[in-house]
Amino acid sequence: MSRPAEPDPRGQVDDLVARARAGEARAVGRLISWVEDATPASPVFSQRLRAVMAALAPHVGHAHVVGLTGAPGVGKSTSTSALVRELRGRGRRVAVLAIDPSSPFSGGALLGDRIRMGDHALDSGVFIRSMASRGHLGGLSWTTPQAVRVLDAAGFDVVVIETVGVGQSEVEIAGLADTTVVLLAPGMGDGIQAAKAGILEIGDVYVVNKADRDGADHVRRDLRSMMALADRPPEAWKPPILKTVAQTGEGLAEVADVLDRHHRRLTASGELVRRRARRARDEIEAIALDDLRRSWGRVGTVEALDGLADRVAAGDLDPYAAADQLLALAPKPPGGGPA
Amino acid sequence: MSRPAEPDPRGQVDDLVARARAGEARAVGRLISWVEDATPASPVFSQRLRAVMAALAPHVGHAHVVGLTGAPGVGKSTSTSALVRELRGRGRRVAVLAIDPSSPFSGGALLGDRIRMGDHALDSGVFIRSMASRGHLGGLSWTTPQAVRVLDAAGFDVVVIETVGVGQSEVEIAGLADTTVVLLAPGMGDGIQAAKAGILEIGDVYVVNKADRDGADHVRRDLRSMMALADRPPEAWKPPILKTVAQTGEGLAEVADVLDRHHRRLTASGELVRRRARRARDEIEAIALDDLRRSWGRVGTVEALDGLADRVAAGDLDPYAAADQLLALAPKPPGGGPA
Repeated sequence: MSRPAEPDPRGQVDDLVARARAGEARAVGRLISWVEDATPASPVFSQRLRAVMAALAPHVGHAHVVGLTGAPGVGKSTSTSALVRELRGRGRRVAVLAIDPSSPFSGGALLGDRIRMGDHALDSGVFIRSMASRGHLGGLSWTTPQAVRVLDAAGFDVVVIETVGVGQSEVEIAGLADTTVVLLAPGMGDGIQAAKAGILEIGDVYVVNKADRDGADHVRRDLRSMMALADRPPEAWKPPILKTVAQTGEGLAEVADVLDRHHRRLTASGELVRRRARRARDEIEAIALDDLRRSWGRVGTVEALDGLADRVAAGDLDPYAAADQLLALAPKPPGGGPA
Repeated sequence: MSRPAEPDPRGQVDDLVARARAGEARAVGRLISWVEDATPASPVFSQRLRAVMAALAPHVGHAHVVGLTGAPGVGKSTSTSALVRELRGRGRRVAVLAIDPSSPFSGGALLGDRIRMGDHALDSGVFIRSMASRGHLGGLSWTTPQAVRVLDAAGFDVVVIETVGVGQSEVEIAGLADTTVVLLAPGMGDGIQAAKAGILEIGDVYVVNKADRDGADHVRRDLRSMMALADRPPEAWKPPILKTVAQTGEGLAEVADVLDRHHRRLTASGELVRRRARRARDEIEAIALDDLRRSWGRVGTVEALDGLADRVAAGDLDPYAAADQLLALAPKPPGGGPA
């Protein structure tokens, strides 16, 4: 590699983490870039990311992580922007991670950044970042929880994860967030119908946006009657259904109030701790599986896996026997040292 | 477990595989149920599945695997049924796997079976089965490739995998199939617009269904002009755009012709072998990762993982260090023996 050696990565990390915690947006952005860059399995990048995560660990757990999802066209960006404005008015520091799962092939995360930034560009209490969804384990990239970790440690009070609700990703965002907001809008037709089944199981809060349009009450009524059929214990949180016009900011104060109420409720019931432990569990598993998968892709084993695949494709071997042989290659746990 | 011990599973497997290969639908259905049942990590079920896969291995690789995907409402079921009729008219044996990813929580695969079966219920050259998508590694269940393996070994000439096209699952079906058919229809509005980017990268064949309705030509023209922008090498397969009215069977002969043409092309170019080796590779990896994940969930390590998760959630440990500790528990490769 002709890339110049990075002197003293640990010192550099500590410095960056300190600056991020002091509120320097550039440092936060750099740390998130490191999270994103770590994916291509370069040992240098991975080592740096490990150092970052170790440095951040003592500082996480304070942010309220809000997932915001909805079908294309319901007004997610506008709603996020209006919510940020409302929360800023209440003195909160807010970070937004916009996950773009539009295509696993083409990223497409850059243009959005510029458009979104406009509104809040000069406000140091707001940080907005788009991340492409690599999503090799599903709709959301495994880097998302680590980016949340950076923003949490950097002292943001609220971290909003915005994602397009298309099937699987809705469920994954519900796994990542403390509070999941499902956004709907009138006149979406087929899309909503198809999505309804999944939507009903993940929302902590429902928001019918574009409430000034025909059909908003219909969507709300529809949702309410479907939710009435759900079998909830009487003490369970009953997801409220709010109405907004994100374009004008109408109804956003109520959304912010409900978010606070849900957060307090989660904290009081102990559910927040349980959700976060579950999230950490998923994250640890994903990292461990990813490490293993990478080690299978390294020289020596990549031929082995390809050879096994050829034999399975040719019918000489079944996939279970092949998986056993792959596991028997017994990759040693990749530690922080040079690989 | 109070379940009675199953005597001689290996003999039972050989018998069932022989009957499936002789064309007995009940035996095929039983094998697919075994594939589905194996997921809950019961050692008995897993052992049986391993025996099944070993018995099938020498018989796979003959079926043409066709993926059929499209947004809700484009007429997937009707199109599948019409395609089955057309292929039966040509003397082919056809199996259909309908994957229902509507919700990862509720299965919902049963009603569909009854509706679909009606048309072809008395034809022994047709096998139709719905599978719920468990999808813990994405939109499509990891059991799907194994169900395809059963149908392939059972001697079906064509295996159609039908799935709702919502983001990620479209890409996964393209990974599973030899030939991917993307179904569109006029008047779908927003949905198609949103899906277009992803759709353009996965289709080997495009079919505009409901071609008797207004707007069908518009959809076709639209698609054609978007495809003209794609950067394809001159010798590459140029995905044709066909028109059908699945309800009446109009245009299905052309679809069947194109499927044959694409299959011949894949075979001649060596691309079929490459696609299948890639598919086997993914399958082996998924099984190996699933085995590892299960072993982490076993008594002894489940407490370890939960303990690590609690420490990460509390900020005492970072997720990378936790993943290292998890990997250091070094689960031994799970073989065919009793776990």
